[in-house]
Amino acid sequence: MIAEVSDKEYAIQRIQEVNDALVSGMYVAARRMLHNLPACDVALLLESSPPKSRAVIWQLVDPDEHGEILEELSEEVQKSIIRQMAPEKLAAATEGMDTDDLAYVLRGLPDPVYQEVLKSMDEQDRQRAEMALSYDEDTAGGIMNTDTVTLRPDVTVDVVMRYLRLKGQLPEATDKLYVVNRDDQFIGEVALSRLLTVDTARLVSDIMTPDVQGIPADLDETEVAKLFERHDWVSAPVVDNEGHLLGRITIDDVVDIIREEAQHSMLSMAGLEDDEDTFAPVLKSTRRRTIWLAVNLVTALLAAAVSSLFEDILSQMAVLAILNTIVPSMGGIAGSQTLTLVIRGMALGHITPSNSRWLIGKELAIGALNGLIWACLIAAVVALWQQSWMVGVIIAFAMMANLLAAGLAGVTVPMLLKKFEIDPALAGGVILTTVTDVVGIFAFLGTATLLLG
Amino acid sequence: MIAEVSDKEYAIQRIQEVNDALVSGMYVAARRMLHNLPACDVALLLESSPPKSRAVIWQLVDPDEHGEILEELSEEVQKSIIRQMAPEKLAAATEGMDTDDLAYVLRGLPDPVYQEVLKSMDEQDRQRAEMALSYDEDTAGGIMNTDTVTLRPDVTVDVVMRYLRLKGQLPEATDKLYVVNRDDQFIGEVALSRLLTVDTARLVSDIMTPDVQGIPADLDETEVAKLFERHDWVSAPVVDNEGHLLGRITIDDVVDIIREEAQHSMLSMAGLEDDEDTFAPVLKSTRRRTIWLAVNLVTALLAAAVSSLFEDILSQMAVLAILNTIVPSMGGIAGSQTLTLVIRGMALGHITPSNSRWLIGKELAIGALNGLIWACLIAAVVALWQQSWMVGVIIAFAMMANLLAAGLAGVTVPMLLKKFEIDPALAGGVILTTVTDVVGIFAFLGTATLLLG
Repeated sequence: MIAEVSDKEYAIQRIQEVNDALVSGMYVAARRMLHNLPACDVALLLESSPPKSRAVIWQLVDPDEHGEILEELSEEVQKSIIRQMAPEKLAAATEGMDTDDLAYVLRGLPDPVYQEVLKSMDEQDRQRAEMALSYDEDTAGGIMNTDTVTLRPDVTVDVVMRYLRLKGQLPEATDKLYVVNRDDQFIGEVALSRLLTVDTARLVSDIMTPDVQGIPADLDETEVAKLFERHDWVSAPVVDNEGHLLGRITIDDVVDIIREEAQHSMLSMAGLEDDEDTFAPVLKSTRRRTIWLAVNLVTALLAAAVSSLFEDILSQMAVLAILNTIVPSMGGIAGSQTLTLVIRGMALGHITPSNSRWLIGKELAIGALNGLIWACLIAAVVALWQQSWMVGVIIAFAMMANLLAAGLAGVTVPMLLKKFEIDPALAGGVILTTVTDVVGIFAFLGTATLLLG
Repeated sequence: MIAEVSDKEYAIQRIQEVNDALVSGMYVAARRMLHNLPACDVALLLESSPPKSRAVIWQLVDPDEHGEILEELSEEVQKSIIRQMAPEKLAAATEGMDTDDLAYVLRGLPDPVYQEVLKSMDEQDRQRAEMALSYDEDTAGGIMNTDTVTLRPDVTVDVVMRYLRLKGQLPEATDKLYVVNRDDQFIGEVALSRLLTVDTARLVSDIMTPDVQGIPADLDETEVAKLFERHDWVSAPVVDNEGHLLGRITIDDVVDIIREEAQHSMLSMAGLEDDEDTFAPVLKSTRRRTIWLAVNLVTALLAAAVSSLFEDILSQMAVLAILNTIVPSMGGIAGSQTLTLVIRGMALGHITPSNSRWLIGKELAIGALNGLIWACLIAAVVALWQQSWMVGVIIAFAMMANLLAAGLAGVTVPMLLKKFEIDPALAGGVILTTVTDVVGIFAFLGTATLLLG
């Protein structure tokens, strides 16, 4: 009965076996192994395979499993696979798919294929799909499912129980039933646990939780995730502007959003997209990353241009050229720490107008303190190494100035970017290092010119 | 009935009002506002306040709410608050707390206070606490709650229903009841939805899902989170080595772990700790960040030492000093992109021995392609700017070499670190930039020495 500690390792091992079979061309064995693998493991195998292997694996998988596996895949990988499927196979795979996944798959298709797939679907699926497609993909409407179980307020618990037993099965992750009036407007909800613990003679209207917030269909998915986290929901109803019940959102979809949101900052800070596929083809990856390198080349050239202002002193003292990178580098590190904390704080909603001044003061104080520590240390190191206490004093001053600038920029840059509605995680790092590079070089070479030139 | 789109903004606005009242010294008004604020909003207010305001707010909060608010706080902020509470107040606050939160609070206390709090607790809470404390805090045992509802296999659904109605209420997020044998060993589970849809004359043993994996109490919480994500669980039973049911883990605690895990890489890459508090006191923050600056100073000095090997050529041509930062900077950026993708891939379990060679090949190809593009471009820029096609050729060669090194190091550094069980997110960036700095400087100044010296 006890879960093997190695549930995950076991999966990895089995995936490895499939891989080995594929490499040695034992397709029959690989097909058999794939049939025995649960959908989530096949998805993991596809995610961790280069493009060519993905195509081979997909052809070996049982078509009945296609839908379930597609649901488990990340958006980027899913898209690359559905682009290669025949419309009628795709239509078959989408049968019984959750509404949100169905809509996502359809959105990724070129228009003629899309029309063809829609035509091959059965009537009910087509209606579901068209409804979901009428909402933006990152709104509550785009991520909801339509598998709600609804009750009328004027029946007894006993009647509800008989109705449910007749139904025989409830959709996955059903923890609540929704109460609607004659116009299909959402008026309250009844938890399954409540249904099981109250007197069966009572009316639904009497035991339901009224005044529950329905999630508006056009609410952004990030806000949906925040609502789930604040209220510890397992599922929640989605309503339109007039309060009609449209569907429900379940925690498993919200967990995906939370993970994506949390990873977004890290990926953006390296100039990568959220759905970046580690195993994408070389050309595609190169194209995406080139833009980021272009932006950074401009900032590197800017720093070089600043250095070139001090060509005179640089040509007089090679030691300055050697030490010129230390102060900008330390400023970049200190600034990135502040920036990372502020970006996280913004994502968590901790940073408000009322505490931002305190925060700037705090980061300046840290900059001053760290500046003092590292100024003394670097002065000593440089004075001993280069046998010049004057250069030591110059680098100490520059270090102090740059760590202060780093603290200030680390807080203000993301705040300003947010004001102008630019993603701080994407643009913050580049702007910050530009500031610390320029300030660092100016402070070091400028002071050197004044004192030694 | 419709959720206000502004649920979050509304909270922020109310928090702002409390803040304004505190700033203007209207403590009576602030206290009244705080009493009307739900626990999650008070927690948000505390998280986004400087240390001094936190103490004031905490004193204005209704002590009956203390427990619930403590549960909502992040670990770092929670710790700072409980350290200032009197033992008997703390004992009162912990009454009715979830077992995992209770254990966490107790773990954060100095030993004498801990003993005192334990003494002031009622018998049942003390037992729960001692049980939870016997497990490591990041294991399944440390995050579980003991509020399970158990059934015997040999009773009918009808009997279960009567038992539940007698009980009158189920613990929050209960979606399943657990079936245990006479020895309290976990033998299966019954979903509430199943209970509601089957014939009431059937036996529990007949309708339960047998062969369910119980989570071993000593399983690491990261693995627990992965199990929840793989299986889309809302709750899951925890068992000891003999299969005895100990408690259960619910999705709301797992969501916190998933968020922390996802943020871990971003924070580590900036040398920050997972529970870093944006509003921690200056001295504490300075101390933590100093270590990271120290590590980076060593790498900056190393780069300077490499440059100093080429002092001759630097003193002959100041232009080399000016351009010396461009190649290392581009290498650092390109390498960080690869590193970030590999770290994310490792966290998601996508990177295995069987695909790592393919990945190295891919990143080398991207490095070569990007190297070619930026080598040509930088050669043209530098040749025009500095009126020297020779310097252009030199920097082009160095760029090419360094972008290849960046691609190679971006994949191999995190893999090697993982092999030696060092966190790639923490140490990867420093090692990577050391590689790209050293290779960049060597390639640029070394080639310059050969061709121009």
